[in-house]
Formats: sequence, structure tokens, C-alpha cells
Amino acid sequence: MMKPTATLLISCPDKRGLVAKFANFIDANGGNIIDADQHTDFEAGLFLTRIEWLLEGFNLPKDLIGAAFNSIAQPLGAKWDLHFSDTVPRVAIWVSRQDHCLFDLIWRNKAKEFNADISLIISNHPHLQAVAAQFGIDYYHIPMTKDNKQEQEIKQLELLQEYKIDLVVLAKYMQVISADFITKFPQIINIHHSFLPAFIGANPYHRAFERGVKIIGATAHYATADLDAGPIIEQDVVRVSHRDTVEDLIRKGKDLERIVLARAVRSHLQNRVLVYGNKTVVFE
Amino acid sequence: MMKPTATLLISCPDKRGLVAKFANFIDANGGNIIDADQHTDFEAGLFLTRIEWLLEGFNLPKDLIGAAFNSIAQPLGAKWDLHFSDTVPRVAIWVSRQDHCLFDLIWRNKAKEFNADISLIISNHPHLQAVAAQFGIDYYHIPMTKDNKQEQEIKQLELLQEYKIDLVVLAKYMQVISADFITKFPQIINIHHSFLPAFIGANPYHRAFERGVKIIGATAHYATADLDAGPIIEQDVVRVSHRDTVEDLIRKGKDLERIVLARAVRSHLQNRVLVYGNKTVVFE
Amino acid sequence: MMKPTATLLISCPDKRGLVAKFANFIDANGGNIIDADQHTDFEAGLFLTRIEWLLEGFNLPKDLIGAAFNSIAQPLGAKWDLHFSDTVPRVAIWVSRQDHCLFDLIWRNKAKEFNADISLIISNHPHLQAVAAQFGIDYYHIPMTKDNKQEQEIKQLELLQEYKIDLVVLAKYMQVISADFITKFPQIINIHHSFLPAFIGANPYHRAFERGVKIIGATAHYATADLDAGPIIEQDVVRVSHRDTVEDLIRKGKDLERIVLARAVRSHLQNRVLVYGNKTVVFE
Amino acid sequence: MMKPTATLLISCPDKRGLVAKFANFIDANGGNIIDADQHTDFEAGLFLTRIEWLLEGFNLPKDLIGAAFNSIAQPLGAKWDLHFSDTVPRVAIWVSRQDHCLFDLIWRNKAKEFNADISLIISNHPHLQAVAAQFGIDYYHIPMTKDNKQEQEIKQLELLQEYKIDLVVLAKYMQVISADFITKFPQIINIHHSFLPAFIGANPYHRAFERGVKIIGATAHYATADLDAGPIIEQDVVRVSHRDTVEDLIRKGKDLERIVLARAVRSHLQNRVLVYGNKTVVFE
Repeated sequence: MMKPTATLLISCPDKRGLVAKFANFIDANGGNIIDADQHTDFEAGLFLTRIEWLLEGFNLPKDLIGAAFNSIAQPLGAKWDLHFSDTVPRVAIWVSRQDHCLFDLIWRNKAKEFNADISLIISNHPHLQAVAAQFGIDYYHIPMTKDNKQEQEIKQLELLQEYKIDLVVLAKYMQVISADFITKFPQIINIHHSFLPAFIGANPYHRAFERGVKIIGATAHYATADLDAGPIIEQDVVRVSHRDTVEDLIRKGKDLERIVLARAVRSHLQNRVLVYGNKTVVFE
Repeated sequence: MMKPTATLLISCPDKRGLVAKFANFIDANGGNIIDADQHTDFEAGLFLTRIEWLLEGFNLPKDLIGAAFNSIAQPLGAKWDLHFSDTVPRVAIWVSRQDHCLFDLIWRNKAKEFNADISLIISNHPHLQAVAAQFGIDYYHIPMTKDNKQEQEIKQLELLQEYKIDLVVLAKYMQVISADFITKFPQIINIHHSFLPAFIGANPYHRAFERGVKIIGATAHYATADLDAGPIIEQDVVRVSHRDTVEDLIRKGKDLERIVLARAVRSHLQNRVLVYGNKTVVFE
Repeated sequence: MMKPTATLLISCPDKRGLVAKFANFIDANGGNIIDADQHTDFEAGLFLTRIEWLLEGFNLPKDLIGAAFNSIAQPLGAKWDLHFSDTVPRVAIWVSRQDHCLFDLIWRNKAKEFNADISLIISNHPHLQAVAAQFGIDYYHIPMTKDNKQEQEIKQLELLQEYKIDLVVLAKYMQVISADFITKFPQIINIHHSFLPAFIGANPYHRAFERGVKIIGATAHYATADLDAGPIIEQDVVRVSHRDTVEDLIRKGKDLERIVLARAVRSHLQNRVLVYGNKTVVFE
Repeated sequence: MMKPTATLLISCPDKRGLVAKFANFIDANGGNIIDADQHTDFEAGLFLTRIEWLLEGFNLPKDLIGAAFNSIAQPLGAKWDLHFSDTVPRVAIWVSRQDHCLFDLIWRNKAKEFNADISLIISNHPHLQAVAAQFGIDYYHIPMTKDNKQEQEIKQLELLQEYKIDLVVLAKYMQVISADFITKFPQIINIHHSFLPAFIGANPYHRAFERGVKIIGATAHYATADLDAGPIIEQDVVRVSHRDTVEDLIRKGKDLERIVLARAVRSHLQNRVLVYGNKTVVFE
């Protein structure tokens, strides 16, 4: 098992000496950097970096690191997030009828592919109640209609608060989240069953079949008010041919959805994803 | 070297006994089938097949095969094309300023990856004249403006006739072909520098960069009046990351464009591509 | 749901008229061919074909088809297998300690990605008893040691007979099967956690890490006496880098193993795999 | 065009504060770091990093940077290389009969995909003399036999010195280089036409065909005395099937060889490849 670490995700206007400044902060406090990666977007004039160091031997207690770092970050106009690997994030999985992504995420978490506490499942259907029960995860059936969206989203928000959820994973939830909801709870990863921006919206596999594409894909992205337009975290594809029916595309797509969503969730939970503008930097 | 063969590409309403009927026609005339593949589109109720047999030992002379087969095809309402591997198709390559696809196609033809006679290069720019000269291929500079499209297309059509061209390959020609032209000469393969239907139209790499996609692609398709909407022959993709600039996407895209276009041209020249509706069956 | 079909897998010495002969047999008995594919290995002088037709409207009862076809096959020196899509094959899954392939195969079968009756799990460890129980599948713990291999294999064979097993899937069983066992029960698919023939044998991920490869793979193949040398059914790969530890390779490899094994099992259960020599033809 | 930069490739025993130390050296001398990447091999206890900064505004003249940095590096027991982006490396391409990699490298260099001076072609055959002439590159035909290897390698070394070559690219040279030669000139990149370590040695495509693999690959690596065992820089693969003849594998392999070799050469010329033990870190 890895020793506990702290991770800083920083974005700030590019200027000379940033690497040294940030590294010196860690070093001056006795921290041993085990991973540091950076990216400069020259068009945006933006410097983005991820720095991970061992808490062992670090002189600052966890609750003082933020304030100490801020005294360096503020003058630079830097935005930053601080994460600790020994704080287990609490995850809610939202599903509809399909179980493949749900099963996959639960299995990977049990297999320690991520370090999450999956403590809540929300669905607009009752179908996957049994799966939740089988793994001892609380399941709430919150049916959505044209008319009840607003009050149901209030219930959903209350549940996220009650369960102290850090991340919502839309594991084939198949419902649009309101802009208002996303403003109140922005940490949402969605899996879209196409190679965005191709086939935005409904029934992408049917439309891919009609278009006669030779490759299909899946895209994991942060949910935004603008449907399927959020920052892309991960994508992958698989080859198809005229022999593949719509059902075959759906079947092949499920494998993509499972893997692409899992990679995106893992990168997010390891604090490797830095969002800026409508893009992501994924520090691998 | 392969022995000369005949190839039938057939599409007809699906009914019982088609495989036997077609196979018997070849067999009854002493033909030895070396490759036969089929596909049934159950939704369209369509049977599509490719049959290739050795001309050696076949009792019908080449110029009588069509008529003989038609007596079988007509009652079935079948559409069909007949091709002979010892007839070398004449190919025109249309280019703009970029040379990577042009070089690649010429190199592959010299390397016998296809069996084509590349006898004509048409460009709206003079830039690649030297390349044409270097390989001894006739080069015509036909500049296109908003105003002269119609008369220039007439010149282009005359050249295709003069050179008895069977296939036009748009190797980064970067110009829209008029619907009228395509009606008169439909055998046109285009390489589009994106993973269609994503980023239809201009500057796909810039838009892919802005969208922050994690994978880019290229698509080879038959040209149609509706821009970038023609039947797709081949697609492929390559992974990109935040580290890739627009220039990197363009560089990686060039490799995709070369390979995807070459595969599509090769499949077409081997008479493996059967178009129906807005789709292709590529018999590999 | 697809209508019931019959499928013939045939390999015989290549000669003129085979396509017609086989198609006529189906046609003459009122069968409607829905899929026919063929391959000729010119070096081996071998013709290999897969023909699938609807049982509906076919004049021969299922139990007479074999004898009737044999009267055609025998003079041609053809080897053939006959399968019916409404006969559900009985599958045994053999496991060791790892559960990812087991879960995946069970999930896919429930999701109707294949049409199998998974009725038996055999393991040399007790670890996955609970998984078997959870899905109501009989589980037998048959520990293997250097000394007891022979008698334990007898037990295993008895179980395969008792459960009328058609196919054994080694889902990370991690034990060598004796040549004698394979002779008695040859229908065994194994997943090897490397891109064969690279890293044959033990600990491929550790050796891939030491070798510093940039891509790792997985291979599904039929088990043979010669370890990891059996006919390959399916392979796939994933890109890795210096950032990937051995644990990362193992994690990424699990995704490959699940998908590659599932594809191979599916192709086999759909009677799309024809073995000849030490190779396979997979009719897709 | 990018402004001139300096790049340090450093490997040293891992200890606390290395990132800060190296960054401070650049910063203290007024350098603006535009790219910094690092990797820690915890098993080897080794810290590896690549730091690139703008020469513009850097206070040390180019010829003093090495000495200045060494005063920091030596106490740390660090190995390091210093490169300048405005020094154009001189490259020799060695070929045999096949031209696809040669054409590709020359084309990419003209297209500014790398920044190299390709000034020498050496071959054991006369076949590609014309290609060299066409692009105005000196070509030396140095035939190799069992008996003359030693004296011919002396000629080759003399040419490398005469032309001040920094890097030799074996673009399908198909000859083993002696251990003695490699000791004298270690900067050699080779393209091996298989997915190493599969099919080490001769005729990999024939052996891949016989083995019935479903995927083939290519590997670019640094040449070492031990044939095909050198540090791997880049690999890629392509899917094949039973329909592919040996000729098809060779054709598909050529596309892989071109792309894999080009990527490896580009990474090397951009000073992104750090070799340690028998492995590489490729800082992308």
C-alpha cells in the first residue's frame, strides 16, 4: 500500500520561476516530491501543474498546508486544489436500467482499482435495487417525469448532502441534469455512448449504424448545463463493420463505456484531472 | 503474381437460393471461385455479395460474361458490377498544396500495393508540379475561384475523359465538388481530416483542439453533393493529449490521412467496396 | 430473438465447385442461407467455410441433416461439424483466485451476449465459492499439488461428464492441463495474460515491465499439451508507458483479459471458429 | 518557429529536494522553464527528469552551462546530457533494399516533422542510389559479406566521423552490427519488424503467419550487441486476420515500420528519450 500523500493541482498565469517556487514550498517544509508534472498552454498563457509529495516527514500538519500554500499562490493569481490520498472520497452512482457500468465500478472499487467509498445509488427506475442490496449500498428510487424534475432534483441534492458525496458518477443515467443542479453540485462525471462530438444526444448507436461508420466510441466528461458539451476526460473507440447490427454496436459500446468511464473516474479520484476552460489536462 | 480473375459485386432483394444460383452460374461455366463473401441487411431486405473466380478455365469469354450473368440477375432484380483483375484502372489524383497523400499514393502504387495507372494530377495550385514531374505524371493547374468554378469543372471533366479516368482520388484537394460534377463523374474518393461525423467541414484539427478531444481520426468516403456526408469506406484514429498542439494534431492527422486514404483506395481498386444507400459494405 | 438456425463448419481439400455443391445441398432441402463465409488457404490447398441457414422451412429433420450432408462431404474428404443455435451449450468455468474473468463471463451470459448454460465452476482454491453461490452455480474445490494431479484430473473429467459440459473456459485457472486430459476433452479455451508468443509462461507482466515494452496484450487460445502454443482465437493490446508499474500492467491487463476471453468464447459459442493445423479461421 | 531552448536529461539516485535543486539552477540563472517532466523508478531508487528552458534571457552562455550544472550534478551522483534545440543533429540512414522507411524519414524531415540534417546514406546494396541522388544525399555502397565485416565497419565508422554524424538510423538495414561497432558508436536506432519480444530474429512476418497471430507489430529500439534486445523506444500494432497472406502482413507491417521508426527518431531528436538499464523513459 502506498504511503499517504498530498497533491496540489495548480493553474496560474505563466511566468518565470513557477516550477522552482512550488518545488521550494514543498522542499522547505521537508516534503519529498514523488510525482510532479506540468503543462503550459502558451495560447492561454496558463501554467498548469500537479505536484504529489509524501506526508511522511512533511513539517506542516494537513490542516495548515492550504493556508501556507495560499500565501504563495495568491500573489501569483493561482487557482489550486489540495487533496490527501488518505481521505477516501465518497461517491454516488446514478443509474437508469442498465447495469454494466454499475457492476463494473463496484467491482473495480472492491478490486482496489480506485480508492472510493461508494455509499449511494440513485435511479429513476427500481430495476437495479437488487444489485444495490447484493453489495449493501443504499438505493433510492427517484422517478423523473417532465413535471416533477425540480422537486426530484431537490431530493437528489439532499441525498448528496446527507451522504456527504464528493463525486456523482452518471453510469448510464440517461437523464439531463438541470443547469441549476450542476451549479449547486458540479462534481459530476458522465459517460456518453458515442465518440463526442459525433452523435451528440439520443440514440447514438442507431445513428452510427445509419451513418455506416467504421469505428464507434465512448466519451467520459464532466457534466455541464450544455448537454454532452462538458470537458472531456477520456475517450476510446472500437472498430465495427457492416456485419455489426445495432445490437452489436450496443454490445461493443458497453465494453467501451465500462472502460472509458472507469478510467475517467480513476483519474479524477487520483486527482489527476485539471479542468480549465472547457478542456481537461489529465496528468498521467 | 496472382492469376487473372473476374469479380462480381451484386446487390439484390433477399430471397432463398441466391448463394446457390450465383455459385452455379460460375460453376456451370467451369469457373473456380477463389473468394466469395456475402452480407444480408435484414432491415433493408437486401442481399449483397462479392464473388471472385479464376478466368483460367472459365468457358465464357470476358465480353460475354456480363450478358450471360444478366439473364440470371434481371429476374432477381439484382444490381451488379463486373470487374477483371487484369484491367488496370486509370486513376487521377487531385491535390491542393499538401503533398503527403500524393507521395504516399504514388509510392504505394510503385510498391504494387495497388494495381493502378496513376496518369493524371489536377490541382488548384502550382505547388506540386515538381512532384508530378519527378514521377513523370501529367499535371494540370486549374485554379478555382468563386466565379470560375463552373467552367473549370468542365475543363476537369474533359481531362477525365481525355485520360479515360476510372477513379478520382481527392488527396487533400480542399475544394467542394459541385453536385452536377458528381452526377457526371461519381467515382470519387475523398479523405476528410476528421473522424466523421465529428467536425464536419473546415479546420477540423483546430476545432478538435478547442474541444479538447482525446482521440482524433480521419475518414475516407465517396464524395457526394452533401459535403462530407458520403458513404464511409474507412476510418481510423490516433490518441492525442493536452500536450498536443494544433500543429501536433495536424502532424498526427497526416499519418492517419495517408493510411486511411490508401486503405480505401486499395479496397476500391480491388473491387471490395459495395455501396448501398449511404453506406458501404467492404468485403475484406 | 433470432430464429433457430443450423450451422455447418467445413474444411476440405480445395477443388472447383465446392461453394455451389454446399449451397445446393441447403437449397435443395428448402433451406434459406442467412450467412455464408469462406476462406481458401492456397498454401495448404484447403477450403474452409461456414454456412448458416434457417431451420424454418428446411425439409430435413435435425437428426437427419448430418447423415444427409455426409453423403456429400465424404467423397470430398471434408471434415465438418454441425451445430444448432437452439441447442444451448453447457459451459464449465475453471478459476484460481482471480475473479475478474469469472464475473465478466457470468455477467455477459446474463446479458445474453452469449447463449450458454454456465452450470459448473471448478477451482484449485476455495476463494470464489461465494461468487458461485451468489449466482447459483455449482462450485467444486479441487486442489492441485505436484503429486495429486493425475487423480484430480480424473475427478475433473468425471464432473465434465456428469454436467454434460461442451466447453471448458480457463478463466485465469493458472494451472497446466495434462496432454492426456486435453486428448480426452479437447474443447478448452484459455486466456493467456500476454501478447503471445511474447512472454510465454509465467509472470508475463513482470517480464513485460522488465523488458520495458510500450504495449501489453492478452491472448485467448485453445489449450494444447504444449503450453501457450495452441491455436489463437483472439488477441488485443493496450498501450503502456514508463509510468506504469507492474501493478498498473496487471490492472490494465485484467481489462484486456476480460474482453479478449469474452470475444473468443462468444465466437466459439456462435460456431464461428474453425481450427486447422495450429491456426484458427474466425468467421466474423 | 519555436525559440531556441536548452534541454537537460538527468538521472540520479532519488533523494528529497531534487526537483527544487534543478529548477532553482535554471531560475537562478534567469531561465524560463517551458517543459519539465520527471519519473521516479522506486524499485531502482532512481530519479529521472527532463527540463527544457528558453535560452533567451538565460544568463549563462551555452558553453558554460554544462560546467555550471555539473557543480550541482556531481555531488548528487547524477548522469546528465545537455542539448540545444538550435543545434541541428546530423543523421545517417542505413538501408538495404527496401525504400519505405528511407522515403518516409526524408519526407518527414522536409516536412519539418523533425529538425535533422540527413547528410549520409549507407547501404550494403546499390539499389537505393537513385533515391539518394534524387534528394541530393551522399550515398555509399558498402557491401557486407561474412568475411569483410570488420574492414567494412571501419569504413562505416570513418564515414560517420567524416560526416560528423550524431545518430544512425537503421531503416531496414537488415544486417547485424558488431558489439565492437556499437561500443564505438552507440547512438543507433533500429526498426524491428515485429512486436518484440515476439518473433526475435529473422522473417518475423512469416513466423507470425505460421503462428496465426491476430495482431502484428513493429518495434523501434536502440541497437545493442544482443540482437533485438536493446531499449525499446516505441511500438505499435495492427490487427490481422486469417485473410491476410504473408504478403499482406509485410504490406501492413511496412506502414507500422514507417510510423514507429518515425516516432522513435522524432522523440530521440527532441531529446525526449532517457535510457537507463535496458529501458527507456520517453518524456512526451
